[in-house]
Amino acid sequence: MSEIRCDKDGAIATVTLSNPGKLNALDVAMWQGLRNTFDKLSADTALRCIIVTGEDGNFAAGADIAEFATVRSNLADGMHYHTDTIALALQAIGNCLHPTIAAIEGVCVGGGLEIACACDLRIAAAGSRFGIPINRLGFPLAPGELQGLLDLVGKAAALEILLEGRVFDAEEARGKGLIHRIAANVADEARQSAARIAKGAPLAARMNKKLINRLSVAAQPLTAQELQQAFAFLESQDYREGVSSFLQKTPPTFTGQ
Amino acid sequence: MSEIRCDKDGAIATVTLSNPGKLNALDVAMWQGLRNTFDKLSADTALRCIIVTGEDGNFAAGADIAEFATVRSNLADGMHYHTDTIALALQAIGNCLHPTIAAIEGVCVGGGLEIACACDLRIAAAGSRFGIPINRLGFPLAPGELQGLLDLVGKAAALEILLEGRVFDAEEARGKGLIHRIAANVADEARQSAARIAKGAPLAARMNKKLINRLSVAAQPLTAQELQQAFAFLESQDYREGVSSFLQKTPPTFTGQ
Amino acid sequence: MSEIRCDKDGAIATVTLSNPGKLNALDVAMWQGLRNTFDKLSADTALRCIIVTGEDGNFAAGADIAEFATVRSNLADGMHYHTDTIALALQAIGNCLHPTIAAIEGVCVGGGLEIACACDLRIAAAGSRFGIPINRLGFPLAPGELQGLLDLVGKAAALEILLEGRVFDAEEARGKGLIHRIAANVADEARQSAARIAKGAPLAARMNKKLINRLSVAAQPLTAQELQQAFAFLESQDYREGVSSFLQKTPPTFTGQ
Repeated sequence: MSEIRCDKDGAIATVTLSNPGKLNALDVAMWQGLRNTFDKLSADTALRCIIVTGEDGNFAAGADIAEFATVRSNLADGMHYHTDTIALALQAIGNCLHPTIAAIEGVCVGGGLEIACACDLRIAAAGSRFGIPINRLGFPLAPGELQGLLDLVGKAAALEILLEGRVFDAEEARGKGLIHRIAANVADEARQSAARIAKGAPLAARMNKKLINRLSVAAQPLTAQELQQAFAFLESQDYREGVSSFLQKTPPTFTGQ
Repeated sequence: MSEIRCDKDGAIATVTLSNPGKLNALDVAMWQGLRNTFDKLSADTALRCIIVTGEDGNFAAGADIAEFATVRSNLADGMHYHTDTIALALQAIGNCLHPTIAAIEGVCVGGGLEIACACDLRIAAAGSRFGIPINRLGFPLAPGELQGLLDLVGKAAALEILLEGRVFDAEEARGKGLIHRIAANVADEARQSAARIAKGAPLAARMNKKLINRLSVAAQPLTAQELQQAFAFLESQDYREGVSSFLQKTPPTFTGQ
Repeated sequence: MSEIRCDKDGAIATVTLSNPGKLNALDVAMWQGLRNTFDKLSADTALRCIIVTGEDGNFAAGADIAEFATVRSNLADGMHYHTDTIALALQAIGNCLHPTIAAIEGVCVGGGLEIACACDLRIAAAGSRFGIPINRLGFPLAPGELQGLLDLVGKAAALEILLEGRVFDAEEARGKGLIHRIAANVADEARQSAARIAKGAPLAARMNKKLINRLSVAAQPLTAQELQQAFAFLESQDYREGVSSFLQKTPPTFTGQ
């Protein structure tokens, strides 16, 4: 069964994404669990740093696509799924009072990559793999999830990642600014980074994080009409074709309808 | 004679910059041709991707400076040349409905680099060369052309490129974020990238592109007075000195007047 | 005794940070000297370029922390120190009419790195060292100093630099976008870059610099309340603990108070 696990070791907490047999793909319960977990951790002022990682050698494979038939099958459900369930979980991570470190091994794609992007630091294994390969699934990235990617890699790399839909290695991810460093032992390096952060003054770390977020310029929020257009794909034939082809493991045929 | 050529191969169009004997330098007719070509391609919803390239081993050498005596000899003409002719052509490329790929060999400088920057992806040959060497020509980059550069490389690299006015190689261009990748066979790599894009859902690609442009933050537009100041160089002695020295192949002497 | 020295060689001025025996750490008099020096240089239209460097093999080690007991011991003094003394010096450099080049050897940390970030180009020796290791000193980066860092390295690298507080080498600094290039002979490379800039039209260089600053998007200014919060650390126990531990060369113990 899927779960968001949370362990504490002194002033350092570790949050683990777990969905056995599905590369830790995120279902709705996990997105809600992430939000609740980070809301609680953020309120615990005894903490100094939070490490986010995935169970059993992978970070996370993205959203649990098998769920789309029930939670993202029409415009209203799909908008709720993205702007409430996912965006609020990512915001809970991004706005967490404490510094956060994503410790990444294996697959880190789609929603998994979004969670990593919402953390403050990203440390990855040489064999880890990155990307947002949703163009073959027939849908664009939701705006609330796109902003986090854009803040890290800029316009040119965001276009490449989304238009080509390739999955790429850690070296390429580092070149794009997606990860801070590649480590031989990711868990060790994340612990050392967390220990270093924990040795500094916590009020200073929290204010640095708060000011960096405050002074990083984001675009004007989308209007209601722009939001509606961004989710219009939910009623397209190509979206249904992409998801059903993925689940049936057949190549999709897109018509632009 | 100069021309903008447009060929279609299934769902992929190729736009070729051509000005034989002038390294495909862009004259006014070519800027207008680019705008018209991209307006038409953008309206063709059967398309999936557009490749932009240059004739005969070069991308483009910049604006056709021999024309400056007639099209950019005073403030009114110069502002029209930049804010209408050039900026509208770049906007037609940047706002094109379909994903665009610049396939770059040889010289890609000045106006040629601006065209490449307006595309979504940039793939270049190892021997290609980049820069905006206009400081020796006595004029600054027009604001409508500067924003596209800034969006890709940021403040530090934009200052370096314009203040030093160096021409640099593909490896340095990649380091600055000007190009996405260096390819042994640029035409092949561009075709493969276009094929990959064409296999994805077109509505998703178009919305990804639209949202990335929408959420990439640009500065407030210049006021009329700021625009006027940005083009005041057109009435300076140093501008005339820079252009005439270039055409006569003698070193310019600048006085700051 | 500390000083800001200014020498001219034709159209190129060199500003030297000097505080012997303190790795050119910046005291209040030096920050004020920097502001006055750059205000004067900016008004001298015969100049073409300004090189900023440090005395005796180091750029600068940051602020002179021994002074904190007198100039930054309470909220009012600390806000004055940062928003008037330091921020106005950095603005005088950043808004200087002429192109500026930081020629960096040895230590370039804290306030020294802020000065380098305010310059237009940064050229560094292979052995130079960078960072803002203030988390162990118990305080966050002041907002007026943070914006300059963010403009160059973006959100992800700014978080890493401030949360970890590591001091890192020139290669890592180049990877983060902090410096433009590493040179075997920094003084030579800076002179060649200045000579190249000086050969271009000065009005063009000044307008390029002005437009790049104008079109680089910065966040909305902080409100009075946000500013107050950003400096609240000045009344914390951890700030006093960090500074006194540093001066006594003992490890600090932070409590979050």
